[in-house]
Amino acid sequence: EKKRSRRNLIKIEFMRWLVMFFVGVLTGFVASFIDYSVVHVSDLKFKYVRRFVDNCVENYCLEQPYLIWIGFNGILVFVGALLTVYLEPVAAGSGIPQIKCYLNGVKVPHVVRLQTIFTKVVGVICAVGGGLFVGKEGPMIHSGAVIAAGISQGKLNFFRKFDFGIFEFFRTDTEKRDFVSGGAAAGVSAAFGAPVGGVLFSLEEGASFWNQGLTWRIFFASMISTFTLNIVSSYMRDHPWDLSYPGLFNFGSFDTTTYSGIEIPIFIVMGIIGGLLGALFNHINIKLTKYRRKYITNKWTRVVEAMMVAIMTGTISYLFLYINNDCKAMRHDQEEVTSQFFCNDGEYSSTASILFNTPEESLKKLFHEKPGTYQAGTLAVYCICVFLTACWTYGLFMPSGLFIPSLLIGAGWGRLFGVMLNYMFPGQTWIDFGKYALIGAAAQLGGIVRMTISLTVIVMEATGNITFGLPIMIVLMVAKWVGDLFNEGIYDMHIHLQGIPLLGWEPEPVMSNIAAAEVMSHPVTVFRTKESVGRIVEILKHEPHNGFPVVEDYDPFIEQASGMNLILFGRCRMRIFVIALQSSEGGAETFGTFQGTILRSQLIVLLKKKAFEEYSDSQMIKRSLTVRDFREAYPRFTPIHQISITPQERNFTIDLTPFMNPAAYTVTDVASFPRIFKLFRALGLRHVPVVDKRHKVVGIVTRKDLARYKVSRHFGTMSVGEKFISSK
Amino acid sequence: EKKRSRRNLIKIEFMRWLVMFFVGVLTGFVASFIDYSVVHVSDLKFKYVRRFVDNCVENYCLEQPYLIWIGFNGILVFVGALLTVYLEPVAAGSGIPQIKCYLNGVKVPHVVRLQTIFTKVVGVICAVGGGLFVGKEGPMIHSGAVIAAGISQGKLNFFRKFDFGIFEFFRTDTEKRDFVSGGAAAGVSAAFGAPVGGVLFSLEEGASFWNQGLTWRIFFASMISTFTLNIVSSYMRDHPWDLSYPGLFNFGSFDTTTYSGIEIPIFIVMGIIGGLLGALFNHINIKLTKYRRKYITNKWTRVVEAMMVAIMTGTISYLFLYINNDCKAMRHDQEEVTSQFFCNDGEYSSTASILFNTPEESLKKLFHEKPGTYQAGTLAVYCICVFLTACWTYGLFMPSGLFIPSLLIGAGWGRLFGVMLNYMFPGQTWIDFGKYALIGAAAQLGGIVRMTISLTVIVMEATGNITFGLPIMIVLMVAKWVGDLFNEGIYDMHIHLQGIPLLGWEPEPVMSNIAAAEVMSHPVTVFRTKESVGRIVEILKHEPHNGFPVVEDYDPFIEQASGMNLILFGRCRMRIFVIALQSSEGGAETFGTFQGTILRSQLIVLLKKKAFEEYSDSQMIKRSLTVRDFREAYPRFTPIHQISITPQERNFTIDLTPFMNPAAYTVTDVASFPRIFKLFRALGLRHVPVVDKRHKVVGIVTRKDLARYKVSRHFGTMSVGEKFISSK
Repeated sequence: EKKRSRRNLIKIEFMRWLVMFFVGVLTGFVASFIDYSVVHVSDLKFKYVRRFVDNCVENYCLEQPYLIWIGFNGILVFVGALLTVYLEPVAAGSGIPQIKCYLNGVKVPHVVRLQTIFTKVVGVICAVGGGLFVGKEGPMIHSGAVIAAGISQGKLNFFRKFDFGIFEFFRTDTEKRDFVSGGAAAGVSAAFGAPVGGVLFSLEEGASFWNQGLTWRIFFASMISTFTLNIVSSYMRDHPWDLSYPGLFNFGSFDTTTYSGIEIPIFIVMGIIGGLLGALFNHINIKLTKYRRKYITNKWTRVVEAMMVAIMTGTISYLFLYINNDCKAMRHDQEEVTSQFFCNDGEYSSTASILFNTPEESLKKLFHEKPGTYQAGTLAVYCICVFLTACWTYGLFMPSGLFIPSLLIGAGWGRLFGVMLNYMFPGQTWIDFGKYALIGAAAQLGGIVRMTISLTVIVMEATGNITFGLPIMIVLMVAKWVGDLFNEGIYDMHIHLQGIPLLGWEPEPVMSNIAAAEVMSHPVTVFRTKESVGRIVEILKHEPHNGFPVVEDYDPFIEQASGMNLILFGRCRMRIFVIALQSSEGGAETFGTFQGTILRSQLIVLLKKKAFEEYSDSQMIKRSLTVRDFREAYPRFTPIHQISITPQERNFTIDLTPFMNPAAYTVTDVASFPRIFKLFRALGLRHVPVVDKRHKVVGIVTRKDLARYKVSRHFGTMSVGEKFISSK
Repeated sequence: EKKRSRRNLIKIEFMRWLVMFFVGVLTGFVASFIDYSVVHVSDLKFKYVRRFVDNCVENYCLEQPYLIWIGFNGILVFVGALLTVYLEPVAAGSGIPQIKCYLNGVKVPHVVRLQTIFTKVVGVICAVGGGLFVGKEGPMIHSGAVIAAGISQGKLNFFRKFDFGIFEFFRTDTEKRDFVSGGAAAGVSAAFGAPVGGVLFSLEEGASFWNQGLTWRIFFASMISTFTLNIVSSYMRDHPWDLSYPGLFNFGSFDTTTYSGIEIPIFIVMGIIGGLLGALFNHINIKLTKYRRKYITNKWTRVVEAMMVAIMTGTISYLFLYINNDCKAMRHDQEEVTSQFFCNDGEYSSTASILFNTPEESLKKLFHEKPGTYQAGTLAVYCICVFLTACWTYGLFMPSGLFIPSLLIGAGWGRLFGVMLNYMFPGQTWIDFGKYALIGAAAQLGGIVRMTISLTVIVMEATGNITFGLPIMIVLMVAKWVGDLFNEGIYDMHIHLQGIPLLGWEPEPVMSNIAAAEVMSHPVTVFRTKESVGRIVEILKHEPHNGFPVVEDYDPFIEQASGMNLILFGRCRMRIFVIALQSSEGGAETFGTFQGTILRSQLIVLLKKKAFEEYSDSQMIKRSLTVRDFREAYPRFTPIHQISITPQERNFTIDLTPFMNPAAYTVTDVASFPRIFKLFRALGLRHVPVVDKRHKVVGIVTRKDLARYKVSRHFGTMSVGEKFISSK
């Protein structure tokens, strides 16, 4: 027996690695596919448009390429929006907020489903191909997470072959979440060529106890993902097996760029600008989102809005191109990829070279084009246009990453900053426009998303340069501090807007005065060790909670007797009644002596298997109930109303003792808020019963109770308040 | 009141950053100092020796340079060993095991004291300067940790200026440990130019709950440390403020080296070799260490042993040089730094070029010298010599890092491996000796220390190349797996040899059958809420524990009455008695209803302040006792026997209720081992009371109880056993 279980452990460990391996491989492939498709769709579009433009400048038919451009964009965005709105709305946006919630322990429906990844992948190709100012990196991260969830739950037929009866072991929230962490890391790794950044991203967002084995596996998935991407990219470029290709998306090589210690103050100033612009971006975006939630509620209006944005983006770009004719002398290697537009022969339009490109290529151009390529005016107008359109775009019902537009805005004003510096201090050799574009990009991104450690490492890895670590870190730090004076990071704002109980990294220190007794939900619904079937059914029907304390020395029917019928009056009445009862007694009400906790899912299985004491075979049923029975249904448990219980059975009882968790964590009613918070965060709990010093249950603390307390900070003033949490 | 405390919080936060800043700066400076000193001491030595050698080859006086060499080494090592043995023995070795214990939550005396860093810094300069095969990286990491501890406790006069009454806030184990994490990370960052690796090192070793704010500060300290080092190095090289110098120690640039996917199997083979050689190294070293602990116990014999090793190392090197005359054609740029030795004019001795150098320079030569520089024989003999001497050296009473010798061994056989491959497949362009030297170095290091994530990132950062991430990860993984079949990593072996209760990252899954009731210490010494002064004093005198449960409904004098005098018979008797009592009763013995826990340090303060109920001013004393009183003495609390309590006072009582922690975490007696383990690890606990379901104390689980259970694994078989834990 022992020996078999040991072999099983080794098998499970092996399967964990195998799953991570395939997560890495598949994520790499999906990322390659997205990348390849985007590049080819965009190339096709730009080739046509460029040809028409260059013909039409001479023939005065510039409306033709405009209409082609708009038509192409419109159709692609239409397809993407249609899919998103009608097939899977949760695929909208970058997916990072959803992954963040998932890793934080909050269940967001449909986040890791098959149709989500389908919508995400097709949608993001349409969005980027359709000329919106969006990136494909966020969606890649989300895709990695979905892949991990799918593979680990044995949903792929291919994987069934490997199933040594182990996948059922992975059918728990914890295991699944671990794999999803790996998938998200693999996604980051594929998106930015940043395997270490990917690991740190998962750690930062998952943010629980450091698990050495898991972290190592996450790192493995990240590495494999970059590796797969490398192989695919090498293969596409006819250098199979050459693994030195540095990743799908990077910022190009900054190897020769250096900086000096005296530039640090300049970087700090740029960090402040990034923080301010980031806060402004978030402010406008959240206003727009609120407006959208209020007025754009029809499905078809959502599709129309996306198309409107596509047409507007195209129109602004085209107008910008038309008005701002910034001509530069052509270099030899550029003929293929530039457009002459209104320029003389032998020249090309530098405006067209930013606009007639995928956002990533535009970004690389801003980083690496020679000084003098872009006029100050071009950069300024470009920045403003991207800022406004990106702000409108994020929140549309389209898969859309936010990293690339943020970087573009920042690279734009960063380069402008460099140009201005050069104007003020002419002839200084240390003024490298590309360097300021990079710092500006980092500052703007930091100001918008407010990530710290992982973002620093991602940007470091994307530049392939460790020496820029310090300036990047400084600007991200400053941008975050400045931005935090005004509002939160954009992902957090979107999460809070939806009323999701996300727990932060640590409790605010001012909350140490709050005790469990104040935070807890009270009264609490408890079960007795031997509980009647009818009561279980009714409570499961009316209470949305996932876990319940199991107690002794408690009689729920005292209430029921005097408060008429608990079940008929529903939950709302019961509360009022109980509060009245409590106040009349004068002391804190308790709910029996704590014995353990039991989960809703366990109760449902018990009801389904009819493990009732009154049946003669109840002992046998109980013995035969294995972990497998509890896991099989995961994650879609039968809803309570689908379980048929006869009126006679309602009077039967279930002995919960063998199934409850007798060693569940509890806190005492005097425990401080930070202490409870730490317990939740470190151990990934969803609920913890509160007991008094006689070990009687007095309440229960859930994630929502903790997330409800929020410190608002505005310019140095703090206030603790309760916050809206969705009751869904 | 609230407002003041808020301002205080901001001050504390600010001070945390400030402290981390200075930790980074000072660690950078200390690292620069060590580096500078080592280089200059070595240069001086080699200049003399080289000059004498080249003269003496012609004049047949080769004993002269030998004696100079030996003399120089002997004196330096003598000084280093003297300091270590007589001033601060804890400074011996690399310091990584000690830091590991410290971050794990185990208190090792003197680890973060001033004389430790002094001994460490001077000692390591002597050791490396004295020609031992040791590195200075481990000691740099330890130095960073000591600096952090010193600064955060406000021990530097300079820092007193900044004290806004906040340093006392840092005088807790948790805060101090947080700063030490930062210091260790700064040390890694300075030693390898690897700021991200430093952060991961701290996370891996500290291994607790991911704390976002702390991690961010640790990263800051790391960055500042690399930055300081950069400034100092630039200044030394007359390029002040040029911050692109890539760090103190790195592996040189591997930018042009590439690898192909088909080499992966070769890397796996190298990983296996690394694992095997690593396990062998650890095995020999631990045998030597056991021998040393048994026989070399005198202080002066320890000094003599260190000198013997120094002389032997010198002699072997010299003999090797003498016998193995591997001559190569001189290049133009080499005249200064090579030795002609027995070679013809226009040639130089390649053996001398490895040996007449600091270990780091030798390593870079192995990585980057052109093919054909070293003969296969030279490499093989060199490898064996370094392997054996390094194995003897680690464990001497000298500060000595293990990274560099491990890397040297690995680079040696790695390069040899490349030479052999070239011999087998002549003319293949992908065979780059430097690449195999790098992979070999990583494999050997991984095989010896068995670190994973942080080591991968450290090596990646030291090569300044992200593309080598995957092969490095693979070899480290394989080396660890292979090595783990035989024994543990060398640091863990040394830690366990000393019987320190270090907790691993996770409990072994086979332990899930063990329950709290089996693990816990039982019987347990408890205090009543109103406890007599005499009993407190006696228990503190006889019990070494740091925390005690506080209970109600318990009378310790029942035992005392029938068991004669508890105090006279001491702890040992009491146990026997209690066990007898228990067996006669037939049930599990309990110790009253759990109310909270109290710390030894708190009791000592209470005794010192005489907060006795019988004194009329006791209420006033209790009210006046603030957090400050409990923190002032940290970390050197008055020993109990220095507190004078009159016989009359012994009959007084103390009310522990206001001082105990009523919300202390507890576990129930049925809680499983992994559950308790997770609680300890995630929350950094030192002891947790075990209660039964009536909330009565039945035992206490300490770190030692958890660390005692150990799974031994040999070739796939597992056994759970109890292990020796020092009772110190």
